[in-house]
Amino acid sequence: MALSLVIGDKTYSSWSLRAALALELAGTPYSEQVIRLNQPDTRARILEHSPTGKVPLLKTAEGSIWDSLAISEYLAETFPEAHLWPRGAYARAIARSVCAEMHSSFVPLRTAMPMDLSRDEALAEVPADVLADIERISAIWARCRSEFGQDGPYLFGHVSLADAFFAPVAVRFRGYRAALSAEAAAYVETIYQWPAFQRWQQAAREEHSA
Amino acid sequence: MALSLVIGDKTYSSWSLRAALALELAGTPYSEQVIRLNQPDTRARILEHSPTGKVPLLKTAEGSIWDSLAISEYLAETFPEAHLWPRGAYARAIARSVCAEMHSSFVPLRTAMPMDLSRDEALAEVPADVLADIERISAIWARCRSEFGQDGPYLFGHVSLADAFFAPVAVRFRGYRAALSAEAAAYVETIYQWPAFQRWQQAAREEHSA
Repeated sequence: MALSLVIGDKTYSSWSLRAALALELAGTPYSEQVIRLNQPDTRARILEHSPTGKVPLLKTAEGSIWDSLAISEYLAETFPEAHLWPRGAYARAIARSVCAEMHSSFVPLRTAMPMDLSRDEALAEVPADVLADIERISAIWARCRSEFGQDGPYLFGHVSLADAFFAPVAVRFRGYRAALSAEAAAYVETIYQWPAFQRWQQAAREEHSA
Repeated sequence: MALSLVIGDKTYSSWSLRAALALELAGTPYSEQVIRLNQPDTRARILEHSPTGKVPLLKTAEGSIWDSLAISEYLAETFPEAHLWPRGAYARAIARSVCAEMHSSFVPLRTAMPMDLSRDEALAEVPADVLADIERISAIWARCRSEFGQDGPYLFGHVSLADAFFAPVAVRFRGYRAALSAEAAAYVETIYQWPAFQRWQQAAREEHSA
């Protein structure tokens, strides 16, 4: 099966990062096609591949699949032995709940602190609604870690799609130097020690310096 | 297994409708608890049940699950014989793609045309970004129907979670008298003929007249 992932700049495209980490979890080879964001022809170039005009998009032998969440579920189904979701049914339901919450929420955080892997500077002022998002995400992490995190440092112990979905938040928290609990800061460090994330980070560095 | 669904007003809560239709597809008995929206104590009452302050929330024997998409996946896994997703792997991937797109997108449509089952009146003017959303959703419906809809009038032929996710859009299109292609109008009518939807619609009518 030839899989190909259409993504945006690795430095900036948080949803692309999620899909790429899902592919890394699946452990399957794939090619990638990077479309530079914020260029005059960006939208036209994405529309050549994707009906939504958005990245990421996964090309499969049968056709294209879009949206990071649908791509994740497709990979979880296609590579069951890789256990992309946690093994327990209720842990899996909570993992999906927090990924879905990430998928539809936290607009203030996403707007005020867009992902930028090259950034290392606090915001001059952190708006109240962004602080509320940081608090809610920290509570999600704390709950997952305390209830399901016994077998490892990731949200559900072993690494899973939930970590893929929150990795770009870890980037935001670190890049914008968000004030975090010790617990949340430890989870950010877990993401930065994740080899699959480090490979993306290195590629982003090369992209940025190119 | 005792399942209980916490929802908002049936007249207005589009995400509650999606979760309720998913439960109807699963064919499992469940109880429901309705929290009136837009009341001074609405948020406090929802927070008694839900960590996100949002509905819907599904209570299970193991604990609560939130977000309509996570609830849907939980039900699809728990009741495999009910085939909540389409049976073909690629059809399922596209169903998930369009549900995920619904889940994260169409903010102009959702803002300008909030679901209101008691409404029957066009907007004075339909903004361009809402027209673009209507066009994109109509294209989604047309593609699903033509590529996967051979075995029935629903998006993937047999009724599925994709119909649960787009049912509130059908309500918007009808309630705000959106100008639609014949094809899109026919799918709106399919939703209005869906018995599970009709039960919700009837309950909304009683709620509204109470």
